[in-house]
Amino acid sequence: MYTVDINCDMGESFGSYKIGRDEEVLDYVTSANIACGFHAGDPSIMKRTVRMALEKNVGIGVHPGVQDLVGFGRREINLSPEEAYDIVVYQIGALYAFVKSEGGKIQHVKPHGALFNMAAKDSQLAEAIAEAVYKVDPELILFGLAGGELVKAGKKIGLRTANEVFSDRTYQQDGSLTSRREENALITDHEVAVQQVIRMVKEGKVRSLQGVDINIQADTICIHGDGENALDFAKYITKALKEAGIKVAKISDFLK
Amino acid sequence: MYTVDINCDMGESFGSYKIGRDEEVLDYVTSANIACGFHAGDPSIMKRTVRMALEKNVGIGVHPGVQDLVGFGRREINLSPEEAYDIVVYQIGALYAFVKSEGGKIQHVKPHGALFNMAAKDSQLAEAIAEAVYKVDPELILFGLAGGELVKAGKKIGLRTANEVFSDRTYQQDGSLTSRREENALITDHEVAVQQVIRMVKEGKVRSLQGVDINIQADTICIHGDGENALDFAKYITKALKEAGIKVAKISDFLK
Amino acid sequence: MYTVDINCDMGESFGSYKIGRDEEVLDYVTSANIACGFHAGDPSIMKRTVRMALEKNVGIGVHPGVQDLVGFGRREINLSPEEAYDIVVYQIGALYAFVKSEGGKIQHVKPHGALFNMAAKDSQLAEAIAEAVYKVDPELILFGLAGGELVKAGKKIGLRTANEVFSDRTYQQDGSLTSRREENALITDHEVAVQQVIRMVKEGKVRSLQGVDINIQADTICIHGDGENALDFAKYITKALKEAGIKVAKISDFLK
Amino acid sequence: MYTVDINCDMGESFGSYKIGRDEEVLDYVTSANIACGFHAGDPSIMKRTVRMALEKNVGIGVHPGVQDLVGFGRREINLSPEEAYDIVVYQIGALYAFVKSEGGKIQHVKPHGALFNMAAKDSQLAEAIAEAVYKVDPELILFGLAGGELVKAGKKIGLRTANEVFSDRTYQQDGSLTSRREENALITDHEVAVQQVIRMVKEGKVRSLQGVDINIQADTICIHGDGENALDFAKYITKALKEAGIKVAKISDFLK
Repeated sequence: MYTVDINCDMGESFGSYKIGRDEEVLDYVTSANIACGFHAGDPSIMKRTVRMALEKNVGIGVHPGVQDLVGFGRREINLSPEEAYDIVVYQIGALYAFVKSEGGKIQHVKPHGALFNMAAKDSQLAEAIAEAVYKVDPELILFGLAGGELVKAGKKIGLRTANEVFSDRTYQQDGSLTSRREENALITDHEVAVQQVIRMVKEGKVRSLQGVDINIQADTICIHGDGENALDFAKYITKALKEAGIKVAKISDFLK
Repeated sequence: MYTVDINCDMGESFGSYKIGRDEEVLDYVTSANIACGFHAGDPSIMKRTVRMALEKNVGIGVHPGVQDLVGFGRREINLSPEEAYDIVVYQIGALYAFVKSEGGKIQHVKPHGALFNMAAKDSQLAEAIAEAVYKVDPELILFGLAGGELVKAGKKIGLRTANEVFSDRTYQQDGSLTSRREENALITDHEVAVQQVIRMVKEGKVRSLQGVDINIQADTICIHGDGENALDFAKYITKALKEAGIKVAKISDFLK
Repeated sequence: MYTVDINCDMGESFGSYKIGRDEEVLDYVTSANIACGFHAGDPSIMKRTVRMALEKNVGIGVHPGVQDLVGFGRREINLSPEEAYDIVVYQIGALYAFVKSEGGKIQHVKPHGALFNMAAKDSQLAEAIAEAVYKVDPELILFGLAGGELVKAGKKIGLRTANEVFSDRTYQQDGSLTSRREENALITDHEVAVQQVIRMVKEGKVRSLQGVDINIQADTICIHGDGENALDFAKYITKALKEAGIKVAKISDFLK
Repeated sequence: MYTVDINCDMGESFGSYKIGRDEEVLDYVTSANIACGFHAGDPSIMKRTVRMALEKNVGIGVHPGVQDLVGFGRREINLSPEEAYDIVVYQIGALYAFVKSEGGKIQHVKPHGALFNMAAKDSQLAEAIAEAVYKVDPELILFGLAGGELVKAGKKIGLRTANEVFSDRTYQQDGSLTSRREENALITDHEVAVQQVIRMVKEGKVRSLQGVDINIQADTICIHGDGENALDFAKYITKALKEAGIKVAKISDFLK
């Protein structure tokens, strides 16, 4: 039996600014990565998002980003490993307090955007982030790009880790994601996206843009919550995975 | 035997900006109120300040402020009780993660500046803040202006509370502090400041600017860490209290 | 012949966050109040909004707000007149550079949200804001609540001023707007809103919530660009005013 | 006769946070680079700094930085040329309004920290910044690293440019500054620093760390205002340059 988690970024609104259809998307995902006020989100949004996730029994994750609200945390910043450690500890705590006060538990940590990308490639940054997570709570699961440095660093320090794959992004021969600046970075055809994911889950393989199959472990699938048809895709992929005999469950329910 | 706590705001530096001589002042106070990034402080400063406080066995407090870095959290903002609740939960969590990861425990919560002042007068705001503290951790001690609304709200919800008095501020007949905009707001003479405090601790009274004695309970004394002679005053008051037969200890060691 | 200006807040998006349907609304208004990065807006949004306004020949206005992005500039902050002066100078300059570099001219300044409301009541704040505008460019037109302190302060220092009225807000007997916290603050019926405005323009009167007519001068009408049916209302009011024989033109084309 | 400008970063305080001894340093420099609120500075600081610079007849410069207050604008951010254009236009305008309202004129623009460093190497970023300056005011002088891409881009678009050299930094064989992360990056001996500068001004040469002389044009010398002995060094270098027969004057007085 195959099992996989579906995660989605959540709580990315800010003050009067709304992004995403969180409440509806939460019906189709098993883990939620909740923004913590650095790249998106604010204390009020965090509280509301935590409440919704608890109500719908979705795994709650910290989604720490770099301090770049105007750039939505997507622009790489040349921050030191120590700075990365510090901002991750801070953001885990900020979310922790909302989860604790609402009677829940944090399941995982997944860095956002530029921090996620830098941590996939830079082992020092990855180790700093993994240490931050471990020192606040060694029971937390660390999400990182499948096969990337963050997953390695998490294992090394003793955390449970989840290899994340993307349904709507294409892959390079070295296992990295094709940069969003490239033309072929995104997979817009739902059926193609879903077939890519099913193969990753069942066969542990993905076809790179270079035409070569690469090995990939798929513990959790990232879907996006802020696009026009995010909700449609969430429904679509959930249904397709089930039909392919893949169980969708939150990561803490099946990860060893 | 009389016992009193001495608390001081800490960790108010930000990035390249330095305020206060925290390391030295920590030798003379028993409780530290650590800024959490809203009115002052940043994740790196918070970590360093927590480490220093733990080393010196000083009680660690969360010092949540309004989101107003440029105003240092001193300008009143017309925020709703729910917003106050949310920013206090957030900031408790942020500091919690540093304290937890360093192997310590949070002792207390003391709102900063405008949030402290508004919470002393506005019962709805006070109740929202007390609820935030209680829901994150009912063991935390809540600091508020002696006799003010925040202390009342804390008691009401079931928190231990500490009445805070000021050595270097004058009092009005109604128990409020004289506004900093008034001429007589500050007591600059160290000896006068110390005598005011000793009387508050021993007799439970303070002479208001109007010349009338008022009742006041002094569990903890606030001293300031960012002035020119902050360190001198810290030494001076610590010595003077001891000579007056008043024991100086951290609030969690003696508050019932 | 009656003439009136219609103004609308614009450029309130921020980074990845979108608010308003600026491009479409610009077809129906004659003056645009462009956010400057304090309560909303960012440099990239400002440039785009200035370009659109110039293309559509809409009067360009600076829309300075308090430093409160998360509160969208709607929460009153206890800032000093000098701080108000400083933030208004800053924001006029920031927008000026985009207008200058695109070959245009600034027409007016209208404070946003809490700054607008405080300036309508507080003469010191109003005078500081009027002075800021005057010292940067005495040719700019200052928008303020009809009959409020800001308009008075503008006249006093020698600026041309525009009395602003609201189509969708109810009035109190003293000429102030009913607080948004009150139930009857908003007029949701388009026809009622339009009739209120037509009477203000033609008769210089508005019926207060207390049932008493008050005198009001209507140089410019504020409409909102961020609601669900903002665009519909913009079309509706423009058409209705024309049908009532009221010319709609940008304020600099007719204000003496 | 040799002439050179001495420039220094100014107005880097923020709210309650103080950096630098601006008032005193202004007596020894001929051009001031004034922070504009992105990496440092705030509206109130900007006004005060502009006033001091005008009083002391020091050339006023815009000092735009990236949006990174906590990193003091020193961390490279992967921003697009268009974003760079936008933030430079914005910051020029913000300072312009203070200078205009105080009756002065802006002399130059010098990017700060990471923006300065990235613009020295990246021609696309450099061209975006030069265009921003040119479109707001083609009379402004653009400061860049001597021989770097920013100076080239400025010349190309038609701006007057100033080659900046550092007294207290060592150079690499390719004309770049030694990274601050390297051990030999800083020259701490005042006499060595001054001799390096005198040679750059008189001979147009500097000895690189690799031991090879490289050609360098020195129109303006950067000194730092925030260190312990910044003021001492300012006095020292001013005196030493005069004794070496080099006239110190503001760049607009002698640059062709």
